Amino acid sequence: MLYLGVDLGGTNIKAGLVTDDGTLLAESTRPTALPRSAQAVCDDIAAVLDEVVERAGVPRDQIVGVGIGCPGTVDDETGVVHYSNNLNWHDFALRDYMAKQTGWRVRLVNDANAAALGEAVAGCAKGAHSAVVLTLGTGVGCGVVLEGKLLTGYTGAASELGHMVIVQDGAQCTCGRAGCLEAYASATALVRMTAQAMDQHPESAMHALVAQTGKINGRTAFAAKEHGDAVGTAVTQQYIGYLAQGVTNVINIFFPEVVAFSGGVANEGEHLLTPLREAVYPNVFGGMQQTQKHTRLACCTLGYRAGIIGAAMLWKQAESAL
Amino acid sequence: MLYLGVDLGGTNIKAGLVTDDGTLLAESTRPTALPRSAQAVCDDIAAVLDEVVERAGVPRDQIVGVGIGCPGTVDDETGVVHYSNNLNWHDFALRDYMAKQTGWRVRLVNDANAAALGEAVAGCAKGAHSAVVLTLGTGVGCGVVLEGKLLTGYTGAASELGHMVIVQDGAQCTCGRAGCLEAYASATALVRMTAQAMDQHPESAMHALVAQTGKINGRTAFAAKEHGDAVGTAVTQQYIGYLAQGVTNVINIFFPEVVAFSGGVANEGEHLLTPLREAVYPNVFGGMQQTQKHTRLACCTLGYRAGIIGAAMLWKQAESAL
Repeated sequence: MLYLGVDLGGTNIKAGLVTDDGTLLAESTRPTALPRSAQAVCDDIAAVLDEVVERAGVPRDQIVGVGIGCPGTVDDETGVVHYSNNLNWHDFALRDYMAKQTGWRVRLVNDANAAALGEAVAGCAKGAHSAVVLTLGTGVGCGVVLEGKLLTGYTGAASELGHMVIVQDGAQCTCGRAGCLEAYASATALVRMTAQAMDQHPESAMHALVAQTGKINGRTAFAAKEHGDAVGTAVTQQYIGYLAQGVTNVINIFFPEVVAFSGGVANEGEHLLTPLREAVYPNVFGGMQQTQKHTRLACCTLGYRAGIIGAAMLWKQAESAL
Repeated sequence: MLYLGVDLGGTNIKAGLVTDDGTLLAESTRPTALPRSAQAVCDDIAAVLDEVVERAGVPRDQIVGVGIGCPGTVDDETGVVHYSNNLNWHDFALRDYMAKQTGWRVRLVNDANAAALGEAVAGCAKGAHSAVVLTLGTGVGCGVVLEGKLLTGYTGAASELGHMVIVQDGAQCTCGRAGCLEAYASATALVRMTAQAMDQHPESAMHALVAQTGKINGRTAFAAKEHGDAVGTAVTQQYIGYLAQGVTNVINIFFPEVVAFSGGVANEGEHLLTPLREAVYPNVFGGMQQTQKHTRLACCTLGYRAGIIGAAMLWKQAESAL
């Protein structure tokens, strides 16, 4: 069977045709071109899907359905996007509109969940019993896949692991609480820690690095560490310490086969993962000895394709549940 | 179909015969009588099961199997109790021994998970989409039931929500980390907070209450609050504040239909739940408006029977997965 997946973002509409095992056969993209009406965006999604099907050269009736990954609060049961800050959508009946435009059945999923499902089905956690994917970007996004199925909870709003408080009375989070994992483990938080350390340490090599790059970013402290800078090293340790608290919590809660990372900070690869493992494993409940099996920490491998593949795989998940 | 359930504790062996819908038809109990050998304990489990079946008056071949809830690290796949501090068992092959003794098939489960499954199938979360059960006792035990199935993770060691750090560099936890939910939301933690407040406030009515009861316990602060004592009130608020952080995290992570409480502190009932709801709901990610549905906070209703029923229901869970 074949499935269409859409990754609808604030910048681009990306879509692809996906096989049973998560292989992307053809893809296409267009700018989301905001601000404009939800209907105008949807008409372009339909056009991108037509391009994909044409490129793949498959008959339309071989396609089971369309999965759409969308930022914000998405209800797959009712087919409504309740609220999307990025798209400026409020209670938009995306499913029905797209089903009418395309003639295919349509399912909806939060974009972070779509990416997690993609990595679980076809990426770094392919074949794994379970996976938790954390996106370390502007915020901390998360998707949880348990035995091939997304954790969405009673309301569809589950798996907001970025909004787990790890520091009582800690840094203010965008969600209104203080001390959430997102306020310590996002790229935004890493930039804040870097800026604070630079203020306190005019001798740090980070000042010269920032003069080259133009501004502080999530790479600054890691790059300074590679140059042997003590302050940059301390910032990466501070950041990884907080991330390790969150990851250790995630293992104690889910004990997944894989915890995977995407987003800007994950580009550090083993510079992130090696010290993270050292900080996480000794602190997992019950220690290492209780079992031969343990959670693997890894970086995501599908890049932007994860969201397309995961959205398409919603239909496979639905079929296997029938 | 009929199922046998065993709740094996450090003090008592409790067992019962359970129907498809979680009704307890007959039960029996014996002291665990530690210290003695694992084999001697198992022989008594077999004897208790025989008593149960005799009392119920059902033929042995109508019984699908035996589920045993056991404290500690339990591996249902291999049938081994890796480590149980309460029983002083190390890598004991409980399943094979019990299967040989009884002639029935045997499955194993952690005792907190068994109790959670019992409440989800037949107790306060009966019929719910999903439930998280937190036991507020000496520690903070936890079981997570998602669509009728226990969350056990890749290794069987999942759902240790009591060992989620909520206070970076906080109070020492028995697990080796600092600042775990268990170190703030267990009855043990409540007693610690009560003792600290009494030290600081010789004027508190809690001193007179403790003179009556003989020692500080998890009731002291709640009882003082009922008498209008300001210091006791402040202790309950402090305790509920920490518990609320944990429960809000749990909702953001799982968004279950029910979060249920058992253990000593849960005996406070609405004196615990009403202020807890006020502290939790406004802080859930996305607020209250995103959906009509929301997590219900409740107290467990099955008491000691939850563990027996849940252990028996392991077999029903297994059947429905076949």
